[in-house]
Amino acid sequence: MATLPIKIGILGCADIARKVSRAITLSPNSILYAIGSRSSQKASKFALENDFPDSTKIYGSYDAVLDDPEVDAVYIPLPTSLHVDWAVLAARKKKHLLLEKPVALNVKELDLIVEACESAGVQIMDGTMWMHNPRTFKMKEFVSDSSLFGELKSVHSCFTFSANNNFLENDIRVKVDLDGLGALGDVGWYCIRSILWATDYELPKSVLALRGTVVNSAGVILACSASLHWEDGKVATFHCSFLANLTMDVTVVGTNGTLHFHDFVIPFEEKQASFTTAVKSGFTELVTGWEPKPSEHIVVTDLPQEALMVKEFCGLVQSIKFHGKKPEKKWPTLSRKTQLVLDAVNASIASGYTTVEVSS
Amino acid sequence: MATLPIKIGILGCADIARKVSRAITLSPNSILYAIGSRSSQKASKFALENDFPDSTKIYGSYDAVLDDPEVDAVYIPLPTSLHVDWAVLAARKKKHLLLEKPVALNVKELDLIVEACESAGVQIMDGTMWMHNPRTFKMKEFVSDSSLFGELKSVHSCFTFSANNNFLENDIRVKVDLDGLGALGDVGWYCIRSILWATDYELPKSVLALRGTVVNSAGVILACSASLHWEDGKVATFHCSFLANLTMDVTVVGTNGTLHFHDFVIPFEEKQASFTTAVKSGFTELVTGWEPKPSEHIVVTDLPQEALMVKEFCGLVQSIKFHGKKPEKKWPTLSRKTQLVLDAVNASIASGYTTVEVSS
Repeated sequence: MATLPIKIGILGCADIARKVSRAITLSPNSILYAIGSRSSQKASKFALENDFPDSTKIYGSYDAVLDDPEVDAVYIPLPTSLHVDWAVLAARKKKHLLLEKPVALNVKELDLIVEACESAGVQIMDGTMWMHNPRTFKMKEFVSDSSLFGELKSVHSCFTFSANNNFLENDIRVKVDLDGLGALGDVGWYCIRSILWATDYELPKSVLALRGTVVNSAGVILACSASLHWEDGKVATFHCSFLANLTMDVTVVGTNGTLHFHDFVIPFEEKQASFTTAVKSGFTELVTGWEPKPSEHIVVTDLPQEALMVKEFCGLVQSIKFHGKKPEKKWPTLSRKTQLVLDAVNASIASGYTTVEVSS
Repeated sequence: MATLPIKIGILGCADIARKVSRAITLSPNSILYAIGSRSSQKASKFALENDFPDSTKIYGSYDAVLDDPEVDAVYIPLPTSLHVDWAVLAARKKKHLLLEKPVALNVKELDLIVEACESAGVQIMDGTMWMHNPRTFKMKEFVSDSSLFGELKSVHSCFTFSANNNFLENDIRVKVDLDGLGALGDVGWYCIRSILWATDYELPKSVLALRGTVVNSAGVILACSASLHWEDGKVATFHCSFLANLTMDVTVVGTNGTLHFHDFVIPFEEKQASFTTAVKSGFTELVTGWEPKPSEHIVVTDLPQEALMVKEFCGLVQSIKFHGKKPEKKWPTLSRKTQLVLDAVNASIASGYTTVEVSS
């Protein structure tokens, strides 16, 4: 059977769908086939404003997208509280799922979604775009190199941005009934994923949230920190917040090497991204300088990371649809591990900062 | 009375004294006047190997340095366990004190030292060299600027280096009876100071060490982490270790701005040092890049930071000796705050990771 592009339908007109719809257009193996909103007028306006192809089907409901037999896959950027219902329904209708993060409000909901996908034989992937940047693979080579990097000892991750008053009053990410995980589910998700990425997805043994969680009047987290602990002594910390200047740090320290990058979720520039490595760093003879010094590496990309995400997702869908392959389990596994740690941090905060064991 | 250079005597032939003796030579207001070791042969060899001026007095004991009436001030790089005895004795003999960090094994000992200095009317300053780098002042301007940086929200500091087997077996910093504070007293001191520096020396309300402390067979700390918490919600974390590649990070995040530097204790180069600031960072229209991007700043220095430290110290001593000024209380105050937090981290580890209140 000929391998044709994957037809994607979008559920809703979320802000992030602007970027992802462009990515669907840019990716060589996907077609921006349909968009559905609760009103067709809204969907139509969104499609127009974001230069959707004229051929894009406009629907006045999410159901209509799911009921279109031409739609291969759906991109779901709905508020997290709606994920379980719409993702399960989409899977049952045999639609492959590109699902925004956080995948679910908790791992129980995530498991319902993943089970529905497994039953239906459809692919699921979460929308953690930076995973697909070629820089991420180059950095992985470095931290996987036992001679250059050695054994992982510590990770620190920080993702903050300064939300304006409108965001802090009206954004779905501060609403308990929409994205009730707040900053932990939004920016914290990325911090946790970056730490798991650095540890090769080895789950920590335990998690301890750190005092100082900031919540709004509805109890939604606006800022929090946590530490993660592994059996072998590895330690990681992260800080995530809606209340501080945009910062996106990951520092990974091994016995032999150190990795730094400061724009981990969204690189400073679309077409290239850099990282800094240091290997067996030492001092000059009188300890008045470093020898060797860290070095910067630049990785260019022809497609932005979100288009590479769509390309990877659609490639997997093509394999299933046209070549009889099974869905790739790596992606739901990574989503689940991220959610497990996120749940543990949430539980630690809820319990008044006790240590919470992480069990898979 | 004419302002003459300050005559400095060094107690002991510690490795760090190589760098500081050079700094005394470089500083315009100091004279490398004497060195004493437990054997004059050892002192003589050290002086020769490190290009001391021919005029430098060589003594076969620390007492002989303290008994030389020409010596204005002493630099004490002895193991921490010896600080209280020799520093108090030196103060009683009216010698001004440049004392290596950690200042003492605990704040009680530090207070004995500071009291002795106050009684004798001599200046005390600890050997935290990076405080004297002109970069430090430029960065302070940034984090003090309410419009550029805003309100401080979080700090992360990391200082690790990879000690070799010889260090891990023989260095004074792994010996319970010499520098018994281990990595916490050595690299951890700097992390704590950097955090206090960022908070304008506001003591945290409480400190919590994080699980994962590594100790050697004698119980000396080789690696540890901690979180610091302020009443107003500021949070800081640090990680210090003898067991990971050389890394020296400080990240300071405010409501409007972010500061990064990656060589905070010893700049990559002796004559210049850089830092990165980001102000009101945001994204491009489709959130595919940053606007504005962070910017790098380079600060050059004619003298290395350790020479500037000596210059600052000797300037204060000159003010006292020749102009009847009182000792500058800022420096012992900073030492004491650093030690208080260090003690609290140590107590948190000793107590099995309970939260320890910090009281001045």
